[in-house]
Amino acid sequence: MDQLPGLPARVTVCEVGPRDGLQNESATVPASVKAELVERLVDAGHRVVETTGLVHPKWVPQLADAEEVLRRIDRRPGVRYPVLVPNMRGLDRAVDLGVEDIAVFGSATESFARANLNRTVEESLEMFAPVVGRARETGMRVRGYLSMCWGDPWEGEVPVPQVVSVATRLIALGCTELSLGDTIGVATPGRVAALLDALTAAGVPVESITVHFHDTYGQALSNTLTALRHGVTTVDASAGGLGGCPYAKSATGNLATEDLLWQLAGLGIDTGVDLDKLVETSTWLADLLGRPSPSRTVRALAGG
Amino acid sequence: MDQLPGLPARVTVCEVGPRDGLQNESATVPASVKAELVERLVDAGHRVVETTGLVHPKWVPQLADAEEVLRRIDRRPGVRYPVLVPNMRGLDRAVDLGVEDIAVFGSATESFARANLNRTVEESLEMFAPVVGRARETGMRVRGYLSMCWGDPWEGEVPVPQVVSVATRLIALGCTELSLGDTIGVATPGRVAALLDALTAAGVPVESITVHFHDTYGQALSNTLTALRHGVTTVDASAGGLGGCPYAKSATGNLATEDLLWQLAGLGIDTGVDLDKLVETSTWLADLLGRPSPSRTVRALAGG
Repeated sequence: MDQLPGLPARVTVCEVGPRDGLQNESATVPASVKAELVERLVDAGHRVVETTGLVHPKWVPQLADAEEVLRRIDRRPGVRYPVLVPNMRGLDRAVDLGVEDIAVFGSATESFARANLNRTVEESLEMFAPVVGRARETGMRVRGYLSMCWGDPWEGEVPVPQVVSVATRLIALGCTELSLGDTIGVATPGRVAALLDALTAAGVPVESITVHFHDTYGQALSNTLTALRHGVTTVDASAGGLGGCPYAKSATGNLATEDLLWQLAGLGIDTGVDLDKLVETSTWLADLLGRPSPSRTVRALAGG
Repeated sequence: MDQLPGLPARVTVCEVGPRDGLQNESATVPASVKAELVERLVDAGHRVVETTGLVHPKWVPQLADAEEVLRRIDRRPGVRYPVLVPNMRGLDRAVDLGVEDIAVFGSATESFARANLNRTVEESLEMFAPVVGRARETGMRVRGYLSMCWGDPWEGEVPVPQVVSVATRLIALGCTELSLGDTIGVATPGRVAALLDALTAAGVPVESITVHFHDTYGQALSNTLTALRHGVTTVDASAGGLGGCPYAKSATGNLATEDLLWQLAGLGIDTGVDLDKLVETSTWLADLLGRPSPSRTVRALAGG
C-alpha cells in the first residue's frame, strides 16, 4: 500500500448499480431482486446507494416497480438511498414514500436534452427549478446529474464553457451535489482535469462534485484517479460494472465498483466497503443476468 | 485533446502481442498468422514489435515455430523486432537469423525464478551475463524483462529494495532497457510511483525503463499513466489485450494497445500508431482465436 501525493484519505463511493446500472441492462429484473441488491450493497458497507427512479413507466419501463422496490427495502439510519425524480409529480411521490435524497437528470448538450428529456437545456432547467426548490425546503439533498460532460454522440466533443454554464445553473438552483457524467465514456485524463479546473474557477465547490465515468474505452479508472488528484472525493460506480452489456454493440457500462475499490485500497484510501462481499454480490447478480460481470476485478477474484 | 502537466510529448509503444500475448493464449496459431500479425502491426505504425522467442520447444511449445516466423517476416528498416533469448544457445540462433534486438527474462522473486527458469535469481543472472555481454558486443540492443515487480502469487507483495537489487544487476550486466512487469496485475498507482522513485534514486536512468502492466484487476492504464507522469516514455502493450483469456479463471491479459492509444491520443501524446488499423487487426485476430477481444476500445470501435 503506497499513497500518491495529493490524494484524499477517504472516498465516498456512490453505488449506482440498482438504478443507473439495471436501467441499462437488457435483462428484466424483478423488484424483489432489486431490493435484495440494495440490501446487499448496504451490507457490504455502502452508505450511498442510488435505489430507483420515480419516472413515468412509459419512458423508463425498467423503473415501473420503483414504489415496490422502495417499500421492500428496510432503510437504515446513516445510509442514503437517492431516487431519481424528473418533475413535480415524481417529487410528490418521493415525499409520500419518505425519500430523503433525490436526483435530477440534466444534460450538458442540447442534443441529449432533446433525446432524453424532449426539452431544450433551458426548458429542462426550468422544469427542475421548482423540483429542486421544494425538495430543499423539505430538507432533502438534491443531486444534479449532468450528462455528456465530455462528449456527445451527436455533437462530438463538448466545450468546457458549455458544461460550466449548465453546472453553475444547477448549483444556483440549489443542487447540493453535481455528478459529472461521461455518458459515452470518451473522456481522457487531460480533459477531466480541464473541466474540473474550469468548474472550480467558476466557483463550484470541489466538495460538491462527483465524477461518473463509463468504461466504454477502458478510461474510467484513469479518469477517476485524475479527478481524485484534483480534489474530488465522491465517485459514482456500479457493482460489477452493471449498466450496458460489454458484449453488445455499444459497451456503455459504468466504472465497476470492484475495480475502483482495488485501486483505492492499494492507494491506502478508505471507502468503508468490503471488496469480497461486493464481489459475492456481483457474482450472484451476474448469474441472475445470465452473463459474466465486465469487471476485471470480479472475474479475477471470483475465479470465473 | 488536453495535455496534463508533466507528460511526455511522445511515447514509444512496444507491441508484445505476437510473443508475450500469443504465448499465453490457449488457442494454437500457425506461423503464417503470427507473421501476418507482425506485418500488420508494423503497417499500423508500430516500430517495436516483440516477434517471437528462441526458447527450447520443450519449455514453450507455442514458440517452436520461431525460426519460421522470423523467416516469413520482411524485416523493414527502422523497425525493431525483439526476440526473447534465454541462453547462449538461443543467442547463437538469434545471430544466425540476423536478429538485432533480444530480450532476457528475469524475475524479481525467487519463487518465480524457480518456477519459470528452474534457477535462483542469482543463477539466472549468471546465465544471462554472457548472453547480454556477447549480444552487446555484436551490437544488439538487450531488453531485460523483470517479472513480478509488484506482486508474486507465492510471495505476495514484493519489497521495493528486492526489485531494485535485481534491476540494477540487469543494468550492470549491460541491458539497454528494463521492462518492469506486473505479471499478475496487482499493482496500483502509488506502488508504481514508489518503485520508479526508488529505481531512479538507485541510478537507473528513467529513459531505460519500460512498464509492462497486466490488466487482471483493471489497473493497467492507471498504472501506465502514473509511470508516464514519472518520466517513463516506453510502454509495453498487446494488440487487443492478447495474452490470457479474460473469461478464464485467471485473467492475466496485457494492457490492450488500443485502450492505451485512446488515452494517449486524448492526451495529445504522439505514438505514430494508427488506432483504426490496429482495431482492424485485433478484430481479425479475435475471429481467428474464436473469442471477442478483451479490449474495451476494440469492442467499442469494432461495434461487436
